[in-house]
This record gives sequence, structure tokens and C-alpha cells, in this order.
Amino acid sequence: MSEKKKVVLAFSGGLDTSFCVKYLSEDKGYEVHSVLVDTGGFSDEELKAIEARAYSLGVKSHATISKTAAYYDECIKYLIFGNILKNNTYPLSVSAERIFQAIAAAEFAKEIGAAAIAHGSTGAGNDQVRFDMAFRIIMPEAEIITPIRDMRLSREAEIEYLKSKGVDQEWHKAAYSINKGLWGTSVGGKETLTSNNYLPESAFPTQVSKTEAERVTLGFEKGELCSLNGEAMSAVEVIQKLTEIAAPFGIGRDIHVGDTIIGIKGRVGFEAAAPLVIIKAHHTLEKHVLSEQQLYWKEQLANWYGSLLHKGQFMEPVMRNIETFLADTQAHVSGLVHIHLAPYRFHVEGIESTYDLMSSVFGSYGEMNNAWTGDDVRGFAKVASNQVMIYQKISELNQ
Amino acid sequence: MSEKKKVVLAFSGGLDTSFCVKYLSEDKGYEVHSVLVDTGGFSDEELKAIEARAYSLGVKSHATISKTAAYYDECIKYLIFGNILKNNTYPLSVSAERIFQAIAAAEFAKEIGAAAIAHGSTGAGNDQVRFDMAFRIIMPEAEIITPIRDMRLSREAEIEYLKSKGVDQEWHKAAYSINKGLWGTSVGGKETLTSNNYLPESAFPTQVSKTEAERVTLGFEKGELCSLNGEAMSAVEVIQKLTEIAAPFGIGRDIHVGDTIIGIKGRVGFEAAAPLVIIKAHHTLEKHVLSEQQLYWKEQLANWYGSLLHKGQFMEPVMRNIETFLADTQAHVSGLVHIHLAPYRFHVEGIESTYDLMSSVFGSYGEMNNAWTGDDVRGFAKVASNQVMIYQKISELNQ
Amino acid sequence: MSEKKKVVLAFSGGLDTSFCVKYLSEDKGYEVHSVLVDTGGFSDEELKAIEARAYSLGVKSHATISKTAAYYDECIKYLIFGNILKNNTYPLSVSAERIFQAIAAAEFAKEIGAAAIAHGSTGAGNDQVRFDMAFRIIMPEAEIITPIRDMRLSREAEIEYLKSKGVDQEWHKAAYSINKGLWGTSVGGKETLTSNNYLPESAFPTQVSKTEAERVTLGFEKGELCSLNGEAMSAVEVIQKLTEIAAPFGIGRDIHVGDTIIGIKGRVGFEAAAPLVIIKAHHTLEKHVLSEQQLYWKEQLANWYGSLLHKGQFMEPVMRNIETFLADTQAHVSGLVHIHLAPYRFHVEGIESTYDLMSSVFGSYGEMNNAWTGDDVRGFAKVASNQVMIYQKISELNQ
Amino acid sequence: MSEKKKVVLAFSGGLDTSFCVKYLSEDKGYEVHSVLVDTGGFSDEELKAIEARAYSLGVKSHATISKTAAYYDECIKYLIFGNILKNNTYPLSVSAERIFQAIAAAEFAKEIGAAAIAHGSTGAGNDQVRFDMAFRIIMPEAEIITPIRDMRLSREAEIEYLKSKGVDQEWHKAAYSINKGLWGTSVGGKETLTSNNYLPESAFPTQVSKTEAERVTLGFEKGELCSLNGEAMSAVEVIQKLTEIAAPFGIGRDIHVGDTIIGIKGRVGFEAAAPLVIIKAHHTLEKHVLSEQQLYWKEQLANWYGSLLHKGQFMEPVMRNIETFLADTQAHVSGLVHIHLAPYRFHVEGIESTYDLMSSVFGSYGEMNNAWTGDDVRGFAKVASNQVMIYQKISELNQ
Repeated sequence: MSEKKKVVLAFSGGLDTSFCVKYLSEDKGYEVHSVLVDTGGFSDEELKAIEARAYSLGVKSHATISKTAAYYDECIKYLIFGNILKNNTYPLSVSAERIFQAIAAAEFAKEIGAAAIAHGSTGAGNDQVRFDMAFRIIMPEAEIITPIRDMRLSREAEIEYLKSKGVDQEWHKAAYSINKGLWGTSVGGKETLTSNNYLPESAFPTQVSKTEAERVTLGFEKGELCSLNGEAMSAVEVIQKLTEIAAPFGIGRDIHVGDTIIGIKGRVGFEAAAPLVIIKAHHTLEKHVLSEQQLYWKEQLANWYGSLLHKGQFMEPVMRNIETFLADTQAHVSGLVHIHLAPYRFHVEGIESTYDLMSSVFGSYGEMNNAWTGDDVRGFAKVASNQVMIYQKISELNQ
Repeated sequence: MSEKKKVVLAFSGGLDTSFCVKYLSEDKGYEVHSVLVDTGGFSDEELKAIEARAYSLGVKSHATISKTAAYYDECIKYLIFGNILKNNTYPLSVSAERIFQAIAAAEFAKEIGAAAIAHGSTGAGNDQVRFDMAFRIIMPEAEIITPIRDMRLSREAEIEYLKSKGVDQEWHKAAYSINKGLWGTSVGGKETLTSNNYLPESAFPTQVSKTEAERVTLGFEKGELCSLNGEAMSAVEVIQKLTEIAAPFGIGRDIHVGDTIIGIKGRVGFEAAAPLVIIKAHHTLEKHVLSEQQLYWKEQLANWYGSLLHKGQFMEPVMRNIETFLADTQAHVSGLVHIHLAPYRFHVEGIESTYDLMSSVFGSYGEMNNAWTGDDVRGFAKVASNQVMIYQKISELNQ
Repeated sequence: MSEKKKVVLAFSGGLDTSFCVKYLSEDKGYEVHSVLVDTGGFSDEELKAIEARAYSLGVKSHATISKTAAYYDECIKYLIFGNILKNNTYPLSVSAERIFQAIAAAEFAKEIGAAAIAHGSTGAGNDQVRFDMAFRIIMPEAEIITPIRDMRLSREAEIEYLKSKGVDQEWHKAAYSINKGLWGTSVGGKETLTSNNYLPESAFPTQVSKTEAERVTLGFEKGELCSLNGEAMSAVEVIQKLTEIAAPFGIGRDIHVGDTIIGIKGRVGFEAAAPLVIIKAHHTLEKHVLSEQQLYWKEQLANWYGSLLHKGQFMEPVMRNIETFLADTQAHVSGLVHIHLAPYRFHVEGIESTYDLMSSVFGSYGEMNNAWTGDDVRGFAKVASNQVMIYQKISELNQ
Repeated sequence: MSEKKKVVLAFSGGLDTSFCVKYLSEDKGYEVHSVLVDTGGFSDEELKAIEARAYSLGVKSHATISKTAAYYDECIKYLIFGNILKNNTYPLSVSAERIFQAIAAAEFAKEIGAAAIAHGSTGAGNDQVRFDMAFRIIMPEAEIITPIRDMRLSREAEIEYLKSKGVDQEWHKAAYSINKGLWGTSVGGKETLTSNNYLPESAFPTQVSKTEAERVTLGFEKGELCSLNGEAMSAVEVIQKLTEIAAPFGIGRDIHVGDTIIGIKGRVGFEAAAPLVIIKAHHTLEKHVLSEQQLYWKEQLANWYGSLLHKGQFMEPVMRNIETFLADTQAHVSGLVHIHLAPYRFHVEGIESTYDLMSSVFGSYGEMNNAWTGDDVRGFAKVASNQVMIYQKISELNQ
């Protein structure tokens, strides 16, 4: 008796990956093992429903892999350390999540000795590259199967195919494509396919329900979130709790315009209340406790980190080196940050830290100087202008 | 008859520089030539009042040098090309202005053959260094005189001294120190001397009077502002007009925490409605029309430009090279940007440009791919993961 | 009568491209137009021989496109301005040349309205990517044909095939694969396929024949070579003449270890006497006439330029911006550089320039200070250590 | 009975610091504690002679602080990890050493409770800033005394003064000022004060005595030197032993042209056989075992590290972060490097490492591709040229 070859399928329960289950098992003769990697975007009910659907479609096994804690520890933490906003705007909500899901799926495939790994991405986006790369790096010996990308079927054709296989359900086409995770929710729709239209209020998953301003205080310990409004909790809990508090203000929404891995420009809306507030809070604290040089190099390395992460290069060895650097810079990043929340906006009020370098012991900016004299600054300015002064003189002599 | 030595004094009409006029002319025997360099922060009435005060204090001559157009052409233009926000926050309102004023004063001193140049800065801020450096680079042979910094007189002592010289006026001490210019207004006060307090509403020069959202459209031509809501006008006019429109919304306020030239941390509030809106609009347009590589290097060079400008190094020859680079990147930065303004916030709705690279002819992100196949991306991902795949294999072999 | 489709073939006269002529014309039914782009690596005799071979193989037309002057003007010039040595070692001899050849071939194909473009690269190197990319960017509508890469034929199979088509000549397999151009010669062979073996003397194209040291003086005008030993000549002539002078010393040889575009490591030997001498000379002159800031940013941008060039991204728009930047930095890079040549080595003796910033008028390093006092430096050092001093104090307070 | 105030003097035994002993003790009434910090440049005899001279001049105490091991562990190690050559030329021999000496002297002063710290630097060089900064950062409460810089005495005046105090010895003025240390020897003299003259053979401390080429093999373990020609030894021993082997070849000589901390250009000769050989060897090994991304960011951070070190900013907190990064990149930098030494030159022959990424298992550059197909590269090149292809099309449409 010949054994069926195992394929691991990254499964979301949607139309595309449902098609893949049937196609891989019935047309291609694989033993399909579906896997869903949860990085904080699913409720228990949703997870159960997806599992049920997988079995109803005929998978041999379905695994739900919970990666929320690891996602924070191995990635979000560094996005915070680095104050990373792609193109100064986007907290990389989906980019980070997808690569984690791809890695977990590939490791699962390796574990169960699969011959192939499949994903349901189309040929037009970033996710296909992230899946392909993670699969190839972790399990280069496995075949990578991508039916949706390869066959370029229309939505209608997929539904028809599923019907022909006895799967006759309603496939709701949402007006907006929503991807929800711990580090923010992306929103795509007809406006984001244009360059000039903004998303309507109704497109955002969280509707604005708060009208009165609130104040929230975040606690950091060596760069990591450790409390909210004075109550100690884990960083993941702070993120979840802050999302609950800030999202109903409509905070953290925008449209990101970026360069995709495949070279075209892409536009995606997002709602990321907690990430935006946390990054601005953390950055403000850092401006008080780190040296100018530390701030400069953190920014350089962190932007690069975000860029490689976006491009699916999370496993590049330099990423580990950058993480080590970023963690090393956080020794003094401890203290409280007070934030003012109001409808559609927030600002950082200020910080408190025993590591605050803005200490009036040595002098106050614009007010007093105790640690140096006017003559010291005169000498400083003189020496600091030496090279340009000489350059100017030499230029004049050559005229 | 011995001739008096000429000193050029950068004069603002305030207590410190009024003290300097009397001190330099009466105690030190200089012939004082006061100069005020206008970079867009003064009304005609204010300029006349300052001139009158200068003469009443006994200056030999007073000059008002208008530098608004030059300030845009030689500096603000590049701050826009570079989307420059110091520490991701501050449009460098004062930093840029001060250096322009210092340069103009030094050039004036050179022109009239002054033996000395004086400024009224204290020993605790950035401005002293900017003045010192500009003076030294442009006119190294001139003595630099800084009575306020050197004598460290209290406000009361200065008033007393002026009284003793017959200047007996009311010296109003404002609750907040305000510095107004074309590219934004800075606000310092008791809260900005702390790390944890935010400025009260009343501290901001423009009070919020608009409650209904508005839409504004900015036109850019090769990176330069050329129209507002469809009406053609000069870039300086757009800045002025947009300030009128947006400031009553309370847009563009924040507190900047930064590293001063003298090594201490400083905190300063600001209100810069037009700069914040323009920079976000320009940057969004660029994200559509420039390549990823261009965006990356623009950011690198622009941040450095902002940093050197902040530190008084505007005359560094590399600044001219960076300006040339930035200007060269703007060839395609033409089009319209639509912005939504609302109380205390704004967002960019979208852009229109014939140079938009987000063209659906070649493929739409996440939707369709016409210019490549799934197999092409498969090959791309495979080759793009080669190095890390090999690295992983080699790592495993060494375990 | 049906018309044959035109293909333009980048032709070198070697086995691989000879195979392509026959294969494309006889097996595939194309009208083959061969083209050889000369960037300074061929003698007139060689060019004539290649043309004759092309016609003897049956091409419809053969074009020799001379690009030496353009190669200097549009590329080598910037490699000199930027002192570009990939990985601090390799002057990018082949990388630069190949992309120029690919662009010229693609433009030729466009001009004659070809339906396809072909190159003879294998699937294991950088050149295939450079050809593919240039072809696609310039003429995306053309098919790209790569018989050698696709069919993976052995050398023997190609010879056999040609024999079967009546081409029965001796195909000499050189011990070392040599690629000669204006900006250096690459050398590959059995040692470069290992990590630990160096090339033998005999592998290098120029054998060492000079034993007595010589002195050579290069003249630069705004960064461009303009004279050799006092005799005015064009930059291309200086490069050619200097190669004649320096190569017989065995100068400019090394092995480059680098990252290929396709992710694997590659090792290639080279002999590039003129490039190595010129770059060190130009860089030394720059160290005397440019500011520290200019040197820093030139290095940043130039290394990136070299890296993109290496990767076939010569047409990236940022490359034009970087060229503009580099050219702008060269205003003062004029003067003479004296170089000592000896067997297998050289050093720069010194420079002469009216723009030299090392002028003893203002002070001599380690000897005398005329433009500042000890107190000025004391103040400078004090202010320059402010931040770290405060950081240390704050650190101690937290212990 | 009034107690004398203690001053710690960084003492070298030369004319300037000998003057300082007498001046500080007899004219200024200090209790002088001289200290010499040895970072590998002194023999035991020299150290004893310097100590004897200190006591003969009347110091209260003299301390010899050995810092060679710490100098390697805390600094040279990172210069090797980073392949740091300032301006692509100079291994920072003196810059690194001086800051270590300054720090040790300051810590000693703190330990013995000195009221002041003194150094003998002039006002024209870098060392004054390094001493000033280290003293201020470590012991801001101590007075810094710099008699040579402040009094600007001529050599003759110093000798006269010492004679008047009974110190009547021969003060030999060497033709070249030599500074010898573990990481290289600097050479200054009349040629280095010009821009166009090179140092004569006789100026270099080690004269060339070897004529026959030798081969040497360096062993690295996680980036650190661990063996020489197969014999295990400490990194410091490898440096010392390699200096003995390579210096008699005249290897590692050049003139460095650089920007001093005080803004002027400076030129200094050096002889640094071991540093130059080690850095090239280490870098070559890294090119084989690190990813392209790791090499890029190592270079960025390392160059900055070298630059801050040069400027006396060794204590900047970012320096610790960079060291952490550099160390983290060295996990795979283990193996052997073979080097060919010959008179006045050397080259790296090759490397051996189990971490070598140039493994023929996956494909050989230019020879064979096992891990990907021609079609994969075709797809890669297509996608990699997408953005520029679109940019070109859009440009054409706008013409």
C-alpha cells in the first residue's frame, strides 16, 4: 500500500485556504495537515470554528499553535525597543505577524516530517514571499505548493470548485479585508487600491465610542512594558489592555504607503492604537535617558531591522545582532510615561525616570549653567568652527 | 580725535539686548550698530517699534534686514525636501532661523567694517553657539562680545542698570517665552523645564477657534509648494496662508525633547501647524513617486542635514552637497496632496501625480500581477533566501 | 512569406555565445543580430576577429559598439569620485563593465526592433542577473533568451553540437578565465574556487618585469584625472597610460571575496594596477581638501553606489542622485598626487593643492596653535564631555 | 599645619612632564603623584628608568600602572572585531592608547583623592582633548592643570627653567617623535608637517632586515586571535609575536592624513605591522563566514566606533552598545588565515573555517548551481527589476 505524502497547509479558514484543502487532498492526493498559528488575533471561539471547518473539509489533522508570547518576546519587544514605524507611519503589524506564522508552520512541517508545505497567498502581495522564504530557509528539502498563486483562479471559480466537491457554503466577501493581530489591525479595500482616497469611518474595525479625554500611564523597565496606570502586568497584557482603552478613541489609524517586496507600491490602512501610543511613549522616555549617540544608532539599526522584517528576512543572522544591540541600549530605559488620550489623537505629557539626563543639577536648558562657564562655551564654539572657518578662508584664497 | 570702534549687535528689542546697547556704548565705548534680521516672524509695526527702541537706547545706526525669501530658498526648502523633523517631532523652527539671523548679522558686520560683533545670548542655550560659530566663520578677525553670558546678570540687575542709565520702562516678563518665525513658533515656560508636565492650552500663541473639519489641497512642483486649494502662489505664501488656515485648529503642537549643542537635554514646546502639515503631505507624495532607495537615502542625508543645522553647522561644505542631492531627488515630486484638518489633528487623504508609481498598469498590491508570474516570485523568493538558507545549514553542521 | 523574429545576442566570440548563434538561428529560427560592446578591453584586431567569427557562424548582422568614453563618463568617473573598492578590495572591474555592455545591447535591440534579447551567461554567476535586469528595464516587452543557463549543457556537449552544425574549430580552454577591461582585469581559476589557495604568478595576465622603483605624478581637476607626470591628457588616457606603467610592477593584484547577487559567496582574483593607484591617490587628495563631514558622507553614498552597481541596479534613480552628490563634492579636489611605485606595491608620497586644508597659517597639528588658545580647547573639551559626564553621574546615582 | 593639595600627573619622563613636576611642586606647591600607564609600549628597563627620574625630580610618589591586558580586552579586541582602520589607513594606534592612559590616570587620581590632575599636552594636538575629557568625565570635581598648554613655553625655556631648579641633564631632541604601543608606533617629523613629503626609511623605528618571503598562519576563535603558526597563545602574545615576525619586513607603514578633534588636518606616519596584517586577515575570514548584511552593519558601527574613540569619546554609552553588537557578530568567526609576508608588503592567501559560507554543496560561483535553477534566477531578476522598470515607464509617459 503506497503512503500518501504529507503536506502542511497554513490554514485560515477562508475561501483560498479552504480551496487548497480540497485541491491538495482530492486532486493532488496529499495527506493534508492544516495549521493555524495564533499570534494574538483570534478568540477561542474563532480558533474552534476554524478547527471545525478544517476537519469538515477533510484534513488529516489540524493544529492550532499559540505563538502570542513568543511573538512578543522574539519580535514585538524589539519593535518597541527600536520605536519602529515603517516609513514613519506603520508599526509593521502584518509584516511581523506573517513571518512568525510562516516560521511556526515550517517548524511544524519539519517536526511531522512533511514532504511539502503549502500556503494560500496570491501572486500580488508580500505574504507569498514571506511564506516562501521562511519555508525554504527552515526546510529547504520540502516542496512549496501555492495553488492560488499558480492557478490564478477567480473567487467565483474557487467557489464553483468547492461546490463541485460538496462544500456548499456562503462565502461572504467583506467590503474590507481585515487582518487582526496583537500589534495592530490592517484594513484594505477599494480606497486603498487608489492613491487619493481615504478609508471611511465604517471601514475601521473599532468604531469611535469615547468622547471624553483620558490619561494613561505606562511603566517601562529596561525598555519593556511592565505596568499600566500603576498596575503591574506583563507586556502582552499592557498591549491588550491599552488596545481596549485607546482603540475606542479612534487613535492610531492611518494609511501606510510602502514599497512591497516585489517592487510595486502598496497602500494599506491600519488601526493600531496600542502600538502607536506605546512607541511614542517609549521613544519619549528614551529621549530623556539615552545619549544623542545612542538615539542615533538605535534609529539606524531599528529602521533596518524593520525593513528586513518587512521583507521576510527575519532569519538573517544580522537580525539577531541588531536585537542584541537594541536590548543592550535599554539598561536605563525605565520609568513612567504619561499620555493624554482624546478622540482621534493623543500626546505624551511627560516622563518620570531616575535615569533622566535632563537633570537641573548640571544646568537647565536656556536657564542656567552650573557645570560650565560662558568662556567654556566660547572656546567650544571656536574650536567647533575651526574646520569650516579654515575651509572658508581657503575658498576665498582660491577665488 | 580717536575714533570709536564699531560693534554690530544682534538686537531684538528685549531686556537682554537693550542692556547690551547701553553697556557696549556707555561702559565699553563702542559705536553700536544694531541689526534685526527678519525671517518672517515680525509685523511691520513690530519692526518699527524695535527700530525706535534701538535709537532711543542710543545706537549709532539700526538696520532691519529682511531675509524671509532667502530663508525659504536657502533653508526651509531643503527642510521640506528632506521631510525634516528633529527626533521625529520638531521642524527645527528656531534652529534654522537663528543661524540665518546670525549669518546675516555677521555679513552686515563685515560690510560695515565692524571691529566686533555682539549677541545677547545666555550661557545656557543653543543660540550662543550658533551666533559664535557664524560670527567666527564669516568674520574670524572680529571680536565676539557676549555681555549677558559673561556677566551672568540677573533680570533684576539688568533692569537696575538700565534704570541707572535713564531707561526706565516696564520690562514685562511673559509667562512663556515665545519665538515666532515663518517655520513655526517655539514656546518655553515652567512646564518645559520639567520632564513630566505638558504645556497648558493658554501657553500656545494661537488659541483653538475652529471646530468644523476642513479639507485643504497642497500643490507641489519638483518638491516645492506651488499652490493651495488650486490657487497658484509662492511657497512662502503657501506657508503663511496654511498657517492661517491650520493654526486655529491647534494642529502641529507638541513638546520636543532634544540634545542641545552643549550636551544637556532640553525640552521646548512648539506650535507649527504649516510645517507639520506640509512635511507629512510632501513625504506622502514622495512615497508614491520615489523609489525605495531614494526614500532611504533622502532620509539618511536629511536627518543629518537637520542635525548639523541644529548644531550651527549650516556653513559646513557638506550641507551644500546634501542640498544638491536633495534637490536632485525632487524631479518627480510634483502633484497634489489632499489633507483633512480637524481640531488638534490632521491626516493626509491621498495624492494625485502623473509620476505615481502605484500604477495599476503593472499590478495592484494584493490584487493582481500583470508584469510577473507566480513562478517569477517563487524564483525570486528562492534566490533571495539563498544566503540565509546556506547560513542555517552551515550552522547546523557546526552543532 | 513569414518573417523571422529578430534576436539581439550579446556576443563575445567564445564557445557559449557561438553555441547561441547556431542554436538561435538554426534550431529556433531567429534572425540573429550579434553585438559586442567594447568598454576598453579589446584591441582592434580582437574586435575584427570577433566580427569575422560572428559572420562565419551565420549572424544576420554584427555590431561593434564602442562605449569606452561613455563608460568613463557615466561610471568610472564616479567610482573614482567615490574611491570605491568593494569590500575594501575590489575596484568592481567586471561589475561595472558588464552592466554597461548589457545596457548598450538592450538599447541596440530596442533600436532595431528586436523581439528578443539573448545572453550566454550560466546560472551560477552575477552576469546573468545584470543582463536580465538591464534587458527587462530597458525593453520589458522583449523576450529574454538564455540557452546556456536553461539547457545547462556541458562544454563537451556544446562543442559536439557545434561540430554537428559544421563548426569544427579548436575551442581552447584556458587555465584561467580572464576578463579584461579599462578598469581592471579579473582572473578566475581553480584556486579561486577554493577558500584557501592563492593564484600563482603565472595566472596574472601581466607578468612582473620592472624591478626599479619609479615615481609617478597624477594631476586631478575637480576630481577628474587630467595629467600624468605633468603631461595633460584625458582621464581615459591617464588610466591606459598608468596601466602600462604600473602593471609590470605587479601592482594592484588581490583576491576579492564577495557576496554574489544570488546569495552565495564568490572569490575572484584581479589585476587592476591603475584603479588601485588612482583610487588611493584621489582619496589622499580628498583627505587634504574636503571636510570630515564630506569625507564621511562620500564614503557612505559611494559604498552604496558600488553595491547597487555590483547588483545590476545601475539604473536605479538613486544612482543618478548619488552621482550628482559625488560630483558636487569634487569642486576643491584639484591638485597633484605623487606616488612611489615598486615591485608589487606602491605608496602615496604626498599631495599638492591650493585647496589643502592642512595649512600652517592656522596651526600645525601637534606643533602650534595660532587660531585658538589652550583655554579655548579646555572649554571645548569641557562642553564636549558634558553629556557623558552627566550620564556617568546619573548612572552612579542609580547604583 | 596646612596640607599640600595632591595632584596626579600623567608622566612620561620627557622634557614636558619633567617640567610639570618641578613647576607643580615648587612653583605651585602641589604634592605631585606621577603615574605612568603602560599599554604595552615600554620595556621593564624603560619603566624603571622613568620611575627613577620621577623620584629624582621630586615626586611624592610614582605609580606604574600596567594596562596591557585591559587595553586588549576592552579596546583592541573591538578594533579587530571591527577591522578598524581610520580613513581606511590608520589602526588608531595612538588614539586608543592615549584614552586608556587618561582613564587609568583619572581613576588613580580618584582613588588617592587628588584635588587636581595634570597632563603635559600642548594646545595643538588631539591628546589634550582626550586627557581633558577623560579627566572631566571620571572626576569632574578635580581641577585639570595643563602647564605646557597654558604657558606655551618653548623647549629652550623649559630647559632653562629646569636648569634653574637644578635639573641639568641632556634633553635629546629626536629627529622624529615616536610613540610606541602594543597596537602600533606613530612617527612624526618634519615631513609629516608638510603635505607632500614622505618619511625616509631611517625615520621608521624598525629597519627592514628580512628579504625572504615567509608564510604565517593566524588562528581565530570567535573573532579573537588564539594561535600563531599552529601554536596556541593569548591574543596579546600573538600581537607581540607577529610584530616581531612582520615588522622587519617593513610591513604596515604608511602616512595617515586625518581630521583632528580640534578641526585642523593632521598627518602622522606609522609602523603597525601586526595591526595591518591582523585586520586584513580577520576581515578576510569574516567575508567568508558572515552574511552580507552582517558585514555591512559591522562596517557602519565599527567605523563610528573608531571615530568616537579617536575623538576621546571612549566613555560614550553607545560605545558599550557597539561593543556588544560587534562581539555578538563573532560567533562564527573561527578558523585559520594564511598570510604571505614579503618585504614591504603582504597578502592574505586564503582561509579555512568550518563556518565558511563558500561551500560547494550549494553551488560554486560562476561554475555550478545546485540549489536553484535558471528559471529561479530569471524570476529573481524580473522581480528585482520591477520597481526600476515601472519607474522608467512612468518617466517615459511624462515626457
